[in-house]
Amino acid sequence: MATKHLFLLPGDGIGPEAMAEVKKLISAMNGKLGSGFATDEGLVGGCAYDAHGAAISDADMAKAMAADAVLFGAVGGPKWDAVPYEVRPEAGLLRLRKDMELFANLRPAICYPALAASSSLKQEVVEGLDILIVRELTGGVYFGEPKQIIDLGNGQKRGIDTQVYDTFEIERISGVAFELARTRRNHVTSMEKRNVMKSGVLWNEVVTQTHKARYSDVKLDHMLADAGGMQLVRWPKQFDVIVTDNLFGDMLSDIAAMLTGSIGMLPSASLGAPDAKTKKRKALYEPVHGSAPDIAGKGIANPIAMIASFAMCLRYSFGMVDEADRLEGAIAAVLEQGLRTKDIFSPGMTEVGTVEMGDAIIAKF
Amino acid sequence: MATKHLFLLPGDGIGPEAMAEVKKLISAMNGKLGSGFATDEGLVGGCAYDAHGAAISDADMAKAMAADAVLFGAVGGPKWDAVPYEVRPEAGLLRLRKDMELFANLRPAICYPALAASSSLKQEVVEGLDILIVRELTGGVYFGEPKQIIDLGNGQKRGIDTQVYDTFEIERISGVAFELARTRRNHVTSMEKRNVMKSGVLWNEVVTQTHKARYSDVKLDHMLADAGGMQLVRWPKQFDVIVTDNLFGDMLSDIAAMLTGSIGMLPSASLGAPDAKTKKRKALYEPVHGSAPDIAGKGIANPIAMIASFAMCLRYSFGMVDEADRLEGAIAAVLEQGLRTKDIFSPGMTEVGTVEMGDAIIAKF
Ligand SMILES: CC(C)[C@H](C(=O)O)[C@@H](O)C(=O)O
Ligand SMILES: CC(C)[C@H](C(=O)O)[C@@H](O)C(=O)O
Repeated sequence: MATKHLFLLPGDGIGPEAMAEVKKLISAMNGKLGSGFATDEGLVGGCAYDAHGAAISDADMAKAMAADAVLFGAVGGPKWDAVPYEVRPEAGLLRLRKDMELFANLRPAICYPALAASSSLKQEVVEGLDILIVRELTGGVYFGEPKQIIDLGNGQKRGIDTQVYDTFEIERISGVAFELARTRRNHVTSMEKRNVMKSGVLWNEVVTQTHKARYSDVKLDHMLADAGGMQLVRWPKQFDVIVTDNLFGDMLSDIAAMLTGSIGMLPSASLGAPDAKTKKRKALYEPVHGSAPDIAGKGIANPIAMIASFAMCLRYSFGMVDEADRLEGAIAAVLEQGLRTKDIFSPGMTEVGTVEMGDAIIAKF
Repeated sequence: MATKHLFLLPGDGIGPEAMAEVKKLISAMNGKLGSGFATDEGLVGGCAYDAHGAAISDADMAKAMAADAVLFGAVGGPKWDAVPYEVRPEAGLLRLRKDMELFANLRPAICYPALAASSSLKQEVVEGLDILIVRELTGGVYFGEPKQIIDLGNGQKRGIDTQVYDTFEIERISGVAFELARTRRNHVTSMEKRNVMKSGVLWNEVVTQTHKARYSDVKLDHMLADAGGMQLVRWPKQFDVIVTDNLFGDMLSDIAAMLTGSIGMLPSASLGAPDAKTKKRKALYEPVHGSAPDIAGKGIANPIAMIASFAMCLRYSFGMVDEADRLEGAIAAVLEQGLRTKDIFSPGMTEVGTVEMGDAIIAKF
């Protein structure tokens, strides 16, 4: 079997602690199953800035481009709040997304039965929740040009960002959403603000055409993004797959994540287009939670989102569907067993640290 | 006492039904209290398009500009889904906001004790909730130029919107937020995405300066808008006043509205700058709910948001603080009494229609 090259970017804050649990898991899989993973490691975010003044070095970017998959921890923290905009920690993540052309961000929001009670929403509203947000990740207002602050004189400045989408970008992201819907409950909801945004008008038009041309077997709904946010909070189970742009996807996926009771639980995958020859997609896997600097280094961070991100990696980058299923099963099993990190603790459960949680999942795997 | 000129724009869908209850209330106030309201009425949205091919006529715009306050119902419906973009129902509302320079949109999210149980969130999370979202309403990506769809040839189009904010726009909206915070719990949270948007960098900078220069007695926090959305769902009571831009305000205020159990309950005020001479602000008052075409004409719409919008009008446009307090008290009282329209009905309560609800509130007033 060919070696599987993983490039690890633990990043800042709780990133390294969470990644350590995945490293243990990878060793275990190489040993027990002969999975053949080879790992290399680099720096991203604040730690990369400290080491060489950029949020990711060109050398590490090259390794990310060459790897079969990148595992990413988290970036940022108060230490780097005042660094220049161009080299702020997030710039490393944004460069990875842009240079690897990771246009499709998959963010499942799944409510584990064992955690349904810990959501701020009523149990019946979130129990059994299983939705997938497909967020466009390389376009829109986060990348469009012009993006600048102009000094107008008289103490006045002007801040400008540009929301821009081309037909092909909307086509390919909606294709991903329709394909995934076919493996799920066959229902896509597209969200935009066509009533105030021209990019929203185009988004709506292209999703509709793509549906008609290639995916008319899938149920398609359109919703204004503000109404969609409301509906997510009111009755999230009405959704299966939601497809939306970079900015709305950022907002809506975070809200969806919060519905589930803990963002310490949720993974994500960012995928590129399949290579014409090899059919392989560039890919980066990343927990939805951030670097959580307040709890970093204390051994209490929840490693589940990072481990679940690795499960997505097994599934999408290596077609290791059985292993992915088993790993997700192991996560559910330790939760059923009552193990909880601090962020998801509730009375009657057993509080464990990062390492114990990782060990328990590996033992069940 | 000088006559108070109200210009009514009931609009489409349930707008006219809800407005009818406010008209009864105005008559009652003129009769019992000699409040001296004079009303005139115009068309906005789909009904205006049907009548004269524009979402609001120049004549009605002129009346809105001249009035002491505008009361607005709702616009839109499937009937007008295919009308040209420039004359779609929303264009009427957007023109009112822009031409009247209503830059400050105040959206209270209050959870009435009698309704705490009907939220999709746990009762303890929303009980007693009282937050105020101050949304910038005349700038940002909804109005910035260029805003267009370009045909690139080869079947490719490009949709463009421009997010743009100038210093003075951020200064004046944050001033409104700080002033209002002083009358409440003295705490402002500003939300943007400074980690990916230049307009967010400027937003953060100007809010911070405005605070330092004129409002350092108010507690100020900054939050990234995606994290802010999460926190709204996780523990909304941490907020007092939230100040944010047009697009984030649209998303966040709708989510905040949904927390309260029913958007059929929530009012909003859109205010201009005080006139240099008269100190009077142009103002438009509007329920947060939309036109709800599915229930229009059935006599079951909830008129409370429209009536509560009129209470905001009494407070902000006419300084009638006692009357506003009494009207809000009357709404709370009929809810305590168990009266419910269909959208907020729960077992054991008394279901009433639009007219009965309006009558009951007027009787308690
Ligand atoms: C870190 C930041 C740049 C990023 C984003 O806004 O895309 C994050 O919020 C996310 O959602 O992945
Ligand atoms: C009707 C629409 C143009 C409007 C907006 O997006 O501003 C509405 O959603 C609102 O929030 O008032």
